[in-house]
Amino acid sequence: MKKLSGYPSKVYLNGLIRDAEDAKISVFDRGFIFGDGIYEVMAQINGRFFYKKAHLNRLKWCLEQIDITLDVDAVEKEIPGLLDASGLTEKDCLLYMQMTRGVAPRQHSYPNEITPTVMMYAWEKRLPDINENHASVVTLEDFRWSRCDIKMTSLLGNVMANEHAMQNNCYETVFERNGVITEASHCNVFFVKNGLVYTHPAGPYLLDGITRQVVLELCEKLRIEVRLEGIPASEIRNMDEAFLTGTSTQVLAIKEVDGHTYFKDQPGPITNKLQKAFLDLKNEG
Amino acid sequence: MKKLSGYPSKVYLNGLIRDAEDAKISVFDRGFIFGDGIYEVMAQINGRFFYKKAHLNRLKWCLEQIDITLDVDAVEKEIPGLLDASGLTEKDCLLYMQMTRGVAPRQHSYPNEITPTVMMYAWEKRLPDINENHASVVTLEDFRWSRCDIKMTSLLGNVMANEHAMQNNCYETVFERNGVITEASHCNVFFVKNGLVYTHPAGPYLLDGITRQVVLELCEKLRIEVRLEGIPASEIRNMDEAFLTGTSTQVLAIKEVDGHTYFKDQPGPITNKLQKAFLDLKNEG
Repeated sequence: MKKLSGYPSKVYLNGLIRDAEDAKISVFDRGFIFGDGIYEVMAQINGRFFYKKAHLNRLKWCLEQIDITLDVDAVEKEIPGLLDASGLTEKDCLLYMQMTRGVAPRQHSYPNEITPTVMMYAWEKRLPDINENHASVVTLEDFRWSRCDIKMTSLLGNVMANEHAMQNNCYETVFERNGVITEASHCNVFFVKNGLVYTHPAGPYLLDGITRQVVLELCEKLRIEVRLEGIPASEIRNMDEAFLTGTSTQVLAIKEVDGHTYFKDQPGPITNKLQKAFLDLKNEG
Repeated sequence: MKKLSGYPSKVYLNGLIRDAEDAKISVFDRGFIFGDGIYEVMAQINGRFFYKKAHLNRLKWCLEQIDITLDVDAVEKEIPGLLDASGLTEKDCLLYMQMTRGVAPRQHSYPNEITPTVMMYAWEKRLPDINENHASVVTLEDFRWSRCDIKMTSLLGNVMANEHAMQNNCYETVFERNGVITEASHCNVFFVKNGLVYTHPAGPYLLDGITRQVVLELCEKLRIEVRLEGIPASEIRNMDEAFLTGTSTQVLAIKEVDGHTYFKDQPGPITNKLQKAFLDLKNEG
């Protein structure tokens, strides 16, 4: 098979580290047949994974939600070897981890005595100090399932929604469910109005992002008042500021939603303050 | 790799026919990373695929819904070779077909210039003349997405629901959405009351099964009146009869729902009549 471009150099797969072009799974893997898996993405910054424990705890929780029994601590021990093989030890990089229920003849329900598939890869990525991009977003009625709190690989809904953003020359699609804004296709979303920060409470309609949690902690530290409330979709144009959060997105100002513009040149003061505080946190190591 | 048991002997994968244990795809296949694919199942009965055209037309429609460009007619031409290699020419069997968007570095939106992955396999299966099993089912609030009309491989919701049935020693989980019964985790569902047949109208909340369509045609032929209406979940125990339909399930009487029993020994007269008419249709060739 020819050398793949745009891919990481190495892939960890069930205990072995392989070249990316040799990393292959059975077509009977339930990750392929059913999207029956969980994933996680972490950023290594200044030589350590940022909020690693929070990421791995969420991974454990998600695996429990779908009854995949797997020793995540043992998987964690394999990360240094992968980074070493990938030439990424101590380097800024992103790590993608995916676990599926494993390989079995096709049947919907969970098979007995099945060994989960574990796949990981890392690629060099220096996240910007502050994400200086200014995002345009579109809103869309949420058509995904009601367990968006599970970080699963059955992602076609998210994929379609993200493609919808691309078709509209936007960075993200922001979901509305039951009339309120919940999250975006692969980010969380925040709003600011009269100095208060608003975001939808955690629960089954959104993924409780680690960066979302970090930003909520930063608000507390900075004595910025937070309301865990979903903003009505009808109020979105009346907000003063809006921003997205995510592991690789970090804190990203939303400049425009559905053609409505929040700012001309620079993001509002609260977004700005949170972006700086987030940078300080990364530099603290 | 050791010989797999419980698997088909051969797998068609992107133009090649391989032994099942050698049928492998890249971990970067979007079917594995995102559940970004469509599938189909057809039954060969008495030497021909039952309602093949309807199945392949649905496959084409589903691929269009998620913008995968693929020549299904060309794929159809590969089926005889697969059956031959599998020793299943003219034999009663089931055929599973899966198409994904293809292999690309991970990004949510649709990549440009990507070649879809095509995977198929068949296994010997003699469907019973009439499905004499009597199913027990449980109901569950539907938590899946709102595009259940797309036969996609992002099936974790269906998998979890089917597992819920197994945990309750049942054959199927029947979904309730907005207070009405829509479909089951991998079947459609019908009810009978006072000689009228009820099933939820086709639309985004259910997969419009080919066997569902066949049963509706049989009702017309037999002059059994049909109401395309979702039965309120609160009325489910007041129905006279209930049955499931599906490609391998065929027409399957529901004996029990949530502990309520519809019949003691034999299914009601309408279920019985439809099972016989379905058998006649299969024998017609």
